[in-house]
Amino acid sequence: MNINDLNPNLLKAHYAVRGKIVSRAQKLEKEGKKIIYCNIGNPQALKQKPLTFVRQLLALTEYPKLLETDAVKNFPKDIQEKARLILKENSHGLGAYTQSEGMQFIRQAVADFIEKRDSIKSDYKRIMLTDGASKGIQLVFTMLMKDSKSGFMIPIPQYPLYSATIALYGASQINYYLDEENNWELNESELNMSISKAKEKGINPVAIVVINPGNPTGSVLSKENIKMIINFAKRNRLSILADEVYQENIYNKALPFHSFAKVMEEMKEKEVPLFSFHSVSKGFLGECGHRGGYMETRNVSDEVYEQMIKLQSIGLCSNTAGQVVTYAMVAPPKEGEESRELYVKERDLILGDLKEKAEILGTELDRVPGMKIKIPSGAMYAFVKFELPQEEGIYPEKMSPEERIKYESARDNDYCLKLLEETGICVVPGSGFGQKPGTFHFRTTFLPPKDEIKQLTEKIKKFHLSYTKTKAPANQ
Amino acid sequence: MNINDLNPNLLKAHYAVRGKIVSRAQKLEKEGKKIIYCNIGNPQALKQKPLTFVRQLLALTEYPKLLETDAVKNFPKDIQEKARLILKENSHGLGAYTQSEGMQFIRQAVADFIEKRDSIKSDYKRIMLTDGASKGIQLVFTMLMKDSKSGFMIPIPQYPLYSATIALYGASQINYYLDEENNWELNESELNMSISKAKEKGINPVAIVVINPGNPTGSVLSKENIKMIINFAKRNRLSILADEVYQENIYNKALPFHSFAKVMEEMKEKEVPLFSFHSVSKGFLGECGHRGGYMETRNVSDEVYEQMIKLQSIGLCSNTAGQVVTYAMVAPPKEGEESRELYVKERDLILGDLKEKAEILGTELDRVPGMKIKIPSGAMYAFVKFELPQEEGIYPEKMSPEERIKYESARDNDYCLKLLEETGICVVPGSGFGQKPGTFHFRTTFLPPKDEIKQLTEKIKKFHLSYTKTKAPANQ
Repeated sequence: MNINDLNPNLLKAHYAVRGKIVSRAQKLEKEGKKIIYCNIGNPQALKQKPLTFVRQLLALTEYPKLLETDAVKNFPKDIQEKARLILKENSHGLGAYTQSEGMQFIRQAVADFIEKRDSIKSDYKRIMLTDGASKGIQLVFTMLMKDSKSGFMIPIPQYPLYSATIALYGASQINYYLDEENNWELNESELNMSISKAKEKGINPVAIVVINPGNPTGSVLSKENIKMIINFAKRNRLSILADEVYQENIYNKALPFHSFAKVMEEMKEKEVPLFSFHSVSKGFLGECGHRGGYMETRNVSDEVYEQMIKLQSIGLCSNTAGQVVTYAMVAPPKEGEESRELYVKERDLILGDLKEKAEILGTELDRVPGMKIKIPSGAMYAFVKFELPQEEGIYPEKMSPEERIKYESARDNDYCLKLLEETGICVVPGSGFGQKPGTFHFRTTFLPPKDEIKQLTEKIKKFHLSYTKTKAPANQ
Repeated sequence: MNINDLNPNLLKAHYAVRGKIVSRAQKLEKEGKKIIYCNIGNPQALKQKPLTFVRQLLALTEYPKLLETDAVKNFPKDIQEKARLILKENSHGLGAYTQSEGMQFIRQAVADFIEKRDSIKSDYKRIMLTDGASKGIQLVFTMLMKDSKSGFMIPIPQYPLYSATIALYGASQINYYLDEENNWELNESELNMSISKAKEKGINPVAIVVINPGNPTGSVLSKENIKMIINFAKRNRLSILADEVYQENIYNKALPFHSFAKVMEEMKEKEVPLFSFHSVSKGFLGECGHRGGYMETRNVSDEVYEQMIKLQSIGLCSNTAGQVVTYAMVAPPKEGEESRELYVKERDLILGDLKEKAEILGTELDRVPGMKIKIPSGAMYAFVKFELPQEEGIYPEKMSPEERIKYESARDNDYCLKLLEETGICVVPGSGFGQKPGTFHFRTTFLPPKDEIKQLTEKIKKFHLSYTKTKAPANQ
């Protein structure tokens, strides 16, 4: 068997966040080089501590015997109660398959969380617990894909799960550019143009993906922008996939998070199918390894939803530890409970820290000549624009679009690889997410510890100045 | 959006283990009826206790602070050490994404486990940790499917994950019948006939799936039979998917488990790609909810294996708690360690119990007039053959194959539904797994507690006699 015997869609799929640059970083690390992994939103790999109550709850539910020994005094009362509740509601314990959609009382807790967050109704029968958001997103793609002409509109730049999944499933990708000059919002005429071009090619658009807060952009969409998107989806009979996994990562009071569910409810929109995703991997929990998350579905018939449950049932159910962490996320310690104080302290420390780090990173990198970046207002990323000198005798604007992407992708890859080799800083080239022709970016997280962030920006600055100098055309 | 807007492959996919009869059972249970769930291999839902050391290890790794308090005295020394090792080797803890393939030292422990089990070499670089076996299996299907003509040979009867995945991915299913009269082994002439027929239809066979020990058959394949299968795969340039998740569930000393890896090694076979799967859900751990497992790949080039890693990376990694349980499975307490005694006791109790229950179930049901079943020699299931009286004026042998399947499937579904309604026993109709035309079966687990098994067989007997009487043609 060789590579030509494999699924050609697999060969086409790329996932830059874990691509060649990361492999190189791992190799360098094995050789003894210190690597700062800014390639992936993996907070606990960068020294973020897990929230105490989450892990206490896991320990007690994994090993319920602790509740019967004097070891229990190490656990706050409210966490003991919560553990007992989980073990009562899910009497088989964490070792049994749950319902395909996840434990019912946790789905109810998710619905309560949404009701509280948005002051709208939410139905636990339309909540499904998933192994991280990724698996829920792939479930919806699987369901909505009728054939290779089924088109999914995705933002450029995007999180490469989307392009990889579309390539893997052999569907059609419809790009729409985010408006970098306008806080990375979606632009209506751009959406119209993008969908028209797709239809001209015989593509049948079925859904639009929106990532809010943005990955890799670190931006937060305004309510007006979300309304525009919902109206656009309605006019074009599209489903909306709302990737809202960074909803807790909000750093700018002027730009609060608005969920699609809430805005739809305000608009009394009852037709546009909405699939929204949340995850325990981001926010302030950062429990990436536990692969927990949920998907809420709205404006979808029972008949269609049954197909979603069937699809989930083929993999049996999401993992139970991830389900418990999801429960912890949506039902944290309440005012007056023993573990509340520590929870609030840990939460605020993490979020405060992220906000500060976003500011340092954004401010410092924006000062580098040839770099441009606003302070991220959400998520865990900055999508940093940088200039590269034109190469002598090469005219990208005369290339075919494919050639140009290839050429420019080679350039930002070379940049990020050299950055890695020289500084140990591992970021992801903009071409891994997509960017407008003629522009270069890289995505970096702002997850490293605060004291490292400042150093990091200095290293990037030094590298950038030296790299662009040596790469400048000889005649400059 | 209505059902006709969805992926037509999804509409075609069926997963009987969680199908309509189970939904009906859940509804009856809510109405107050006592249900005995024999539909699914979910041991801990049927009162099987989790192994103590597995849960101790999870508690300590989820909440490492326990190691620093006096609560630690509740944990045996060797488990403390094991927890410390996990937290050292995987210094980010369970909250971080791991490498796409899983934590390296756990993959090494899996390779050691295989080496010890089979006295053969195993390479950790070819071990991938997966969310249960299901996700590993689907990964391989995704990779090997070039187009809709790619054919996967699957046993009939089979575990419906296979048919559901083939339907979902739009590949071609190639059935081969297992030889019920011959201990459910694979028959060479049947394999040859089945592959020839597929090729005549323009199908391009790429792989053969073998489930050993068998699901739903409860049988264990002889080494000779495995050799025949490997030679068949080689002649026909097929990959082998060896579903070996029941390898610890062996009840008949005359029929020991032989892994495909070991038999291949004995044959010095270096060409046939082998993907073998194991899971924490079965055996004596029964940790279904934790979705842990691994896949070992042999005879595959680096280039191809890189594609597998890429595919896994799109979902980031398998869940870390499942990875820890996989570690517990492959590296249990050793002779002389503090937790060894309890481990052995718990293990032997579960396996001894399963063996006894298999005997009771097999013996008692075989005595029912019109039922035929050998004592299961492996796995957790009995695939019980039963006779239904011919219906007056209906001639199945005159129907088209499709009509006949539909007719006979309606009959065994009715049988199982009535069994559920009358006795509360939830089993899965044979048509959910596939069966030869003109035969009827149901699959039942032998997981309920021992005292319930005998009762259960009596209830089935009583039901069967009454059901077949009322269904007998009027003139009999």
